[in-house]
Amino acid sequence: MKMFGRLSCALPALMILCAASANADTVSDLAAKAKTDSWGYDFLADLTTDIGPRMAGSKAERDAAEWAADRLKKAGFDEVHIEKVKVPYWARGAEEASVVAPRNQPLAVTALGHSVPTQAGGIDAELVLFKSFQALTEAPEGSLKGKIAFIDQRMVRAQNGEGYGVAVRSRVMGPSEAAKRGALALVIRSVGTDNHRVAHTGLTIYAKDAPKIPAASISNPDADLLERMAAKGPVKLHLKLDNKTTDAETYFVVGELKGREHPEQVVLIGGHLDSWELGTGAVDDGAGVAITAGAGKLIAELPQRPKRTVRVVMFGAEEIGGADDAYEALHKQEAGNIVIAGESDFGAGKIYNAEMPAGALNTPFGKQLTAALLPLGVDMLREGSSHGGADIEGLHEKDGVPFMDFGQDGTHYFDIHHTADDTFDKVDAASLAQNIAVWASFAWLAADSDVDFRAPAATSK
Amino acid sequence: MKMFGRLSCALPALMILCAASANADTVSDLAAKAKTDSWGYDFLADLTTDIGPRMAGSKAERDAAEWAADRLKKAGFDEVHIEKVKVPYWARGAEEASVVAPRNQPLAVTALGHSVPTQAGGIDAELVLFKSFQALTEAPEGSLKGKIAFIDQRMVRAQNGEGYGVAVRSRVMGPSEAAKRGALALVIRSVGTDNHRVAHTGLTIYAKDAPKIPAASISNPDADLLERMAAKGPVKLHLKLDNKTTDAETYFVVGELKGREHPEQVVLIGGHLDSWELGTGAVDDGAGVAITAGAGKLIAELPQRPKRTVRVVMFGAEEIGGADDAYEALHKQEAGNIVIAGESDFGAGKIYNAEMPAGALNTPFGKQLTAALLPLGVDMLREGSSHGGADIEGLHEKDGVPFMDFGQDGTHYFDIHHTADDTFDKVDAASLAQNIAVWASFAWLAADSDVDFRAPAATSK
Repeated sequence: MKMFGRLSCALPALMILCAASANADTVSDLAAKAKTDSWGYDFLADLTTDIGPRMAGSKAERDAAEWAADRLKKAGFDEVHIEKVKVPYWARGAEEASVVAPRNQPLAVTALGHSVPTQAGGIDAELVLFKSFQALTEAPEGSLKGKIAFIDQRMVRAQNGEGYGVAVRSRVMGPSEAAKRGALALVIRSVGTDNHRVAHTGLTIYAKDAPKIPAASISNPDADLLERMAAKGPVKLHLKLDNKTTDAETYFVVGELKGREHPEQVVLIGGHLDSWELGTGAVDDGAGVAITAGAGKLIAELPQRPKRTVRVVMFGAEEIGGADDAYEALHKQEAGNIVIAGESDFGAGKIYNAEMPAGALNTPFGKQLTAALLPLGVDMLREGSSHGGADIEGLHEKDGVPFMDFGQDGTHYFDIHHTADDTFDKVDAASLAQNIAVWASFAWLAADSDVDFRAPAATSK
Repeated sequence: MKMFGRLSCALPALMILCAASANADTVSDLAAKAKTDSWGYDFLADLTTDIGPRMAGSKAERDAAEWAADRLKKAGFDEVHIEKVKVPYWARGAEEASVVAPRNQPLAVTALGHSVPTQAGGIDAELVLFKSFQALTEAPEGSLKGKIAFIDQRMVRAQNGEGYGVAVRSRVMGPSEAAKRGALALVIRSVGTDNHRVAHTGLTIYAKDAPKIPAASISNPDADLLERMAAKGPVKLHLKLDNKTTDAETYFVVGELKGREHPEQVVLIGGHLDSWELGTGAVDDGAGVAITAGAGKLIAELPQRPKRTVRVVMFGAEEIGGADDAYEALHKQEAGNIVIAGESDFGAGKIYNAEMPAGALNTPFGKQLTAALLPLGVDMLREGSSHGGADIEGLHEKDGVPFMDFGQDGTHYFDIHHTADDTFDKVDAASLAQNIAVWASFAWLAADSDVDFRAPAATSK
């Protein structure tokens, strides 16, 4: 592998890869070390074992934050601390759903995040099936009075996960659209690509101009069942949810490697430490935290710090929403010094492409990153349409912080996303190591460069 | 495909395939029809939709029996009836398990069939991990006093499912072995090859010389978690099961196609209609019932009945045990007239081999079946070590009824066996059709032959 970075600079076709051999040596060493260093994988094993589920606002999330801060200190970060902000703590209670007519059949169900509870005895009502979110929005006002609406839209599997954006409308906007039409509750087909009896939870957002109705998802096989039943005649459902929301705090765990020349300039990388509580948050987003903290740990072990500061942030309350704005509000003053930010929040699937800010591809940074990532299997580097991550969107939108993105193989990501199946066994160690190598390469190259990612052309050589 | 049965008898290498061209035409027609006829697949879709879970002894099982008998009547069987026998009805109640120390983590758990309940508040006790059933049996007497034993033995995946026989000892014999050593309860790693958060249930058998202790299985990812936790230090579990057993009836649904020459001679094929109630019993054993009834339905539509009677039996109470003896006891008088019996109870995976009674391979039946199955992808026909099925073992052992076996691809069978994941979507229509073609070919050829499967050599030509 090192051939590309070290030995073949004389070959014309490979000259682009030899832009800066000292940097190339460093990133090559980082990548080699990522392959054999188990710190990130062990972090994830221990996070899911010693802590487990860690819902935003829960005691478990606080325990996780303290546990993770301790890990960062032991890993050699220069400065580690925890920041706190207020969030609602939405606590899942007992949940049950079943078909009660034409025949009793139990359903694998889970409440959507922020859902209000049902009345104590639950709701029993006739189901009205919609093939898609769009179909629900076309139903007349009042047409769902006394009914439970059911959106039966399937998510489409894709390597880049793009089926999610289409399907997730059912979950995020479905409850209020159903409520506006008079529905007592909404049930959706899980926003997921698997066929297991585990329902996918996730955030819903109630509109201000609609009643808040209970909302839940059922597993794909259960949705198949309802589809077959509904094709035969009327179906009646029972749904009982018992959630409650209280005031709480969430936590941002921060570890910094102080820049040797420009400590005030920050390359920010991170994931989110909170998780849905059905699984143990191994893939979403223990993996992203392990990847970015693991990358930081490798940089911490280099003989010298890069010019700029590398900051690893383990965000809180990503799943339940609002964390990006909270982080931005806390850091508005220094946002101009955050030179670039990236978030890993798509599991541990192998990285296959990269997207940097417009103009960055032709800078020394861009050339060195291209050279560094090629031997790691990342051969599509582009620029200009990075879309960041949920936790750093606030910084981007309000303060213009530039984004770095890495595209991961998410073919199977939505099989387990937001389910009880999100457990440690789903993470491939080699793939996690490749992610760590990529993030370490990026963070080190960005932090050791002088590129102004807000205006790369000005710094391009 | 028909080339083998019809056109190429002159080729020396294929002469074995041309033993009896009239029979070959009939089985070729049956196989062709199996590919396009959706009766079996529809049966399974409707069984899982209109009935769903059907635990032995439950009202659902009775409803299923009546429903299935009606289907057989409509499919053209000459004679359809339901036989009843007494069985215990083991009813699953609420069930929960969690790690309570060193940290609370919920576990995906399910009680083993026949398990006694825990005391009302459940059991909280320290866990003692055994890597295998064998390791548990080597623990000294009294060594598990006040503890919950945990057998962490993984089932090995295999095309023919042979890993099951080794792993299932934990489930069947584990509780009494743990009880003999003083354990309060037994928890096992699921006897299954998947890595989903669905626990695999299944029968346990209490020994007469040991206290009956509560017994449950946890999902594979949860077993991984306990393994990681136990490697770090003491682990304390909470287990609460609430099952009860009452007296009930189970049902054998019988459909017959009366033989045109020897109606008293019976070729018996079947599966079992009861299912564990976590899923909808699509694969275990809705598939086997659909396959064998589907085969009978195709024979029913032929221009004439075969010489002997074809009897399709949908057995009851296979999962909870005892049905083979019950069926044998009911049919002891006529068992001598059951010329051969076969059971389909391994899902709908493609058939790849066949095993017939010793001496049958060289009879006209054996030669015709060889020719018939080759175009269906079954190219390994053997004789002499058929092992039958759970529901027909009594007939074999006590009355010497010969067995016919078909080997199916069970590579993924134990991913969903005895779990909530046993749902209709797991069944492949083309593979189910291949099974129906094979069973129809076998049943018709056996029923239209004169072979005495108890002594095939005497009838061989």
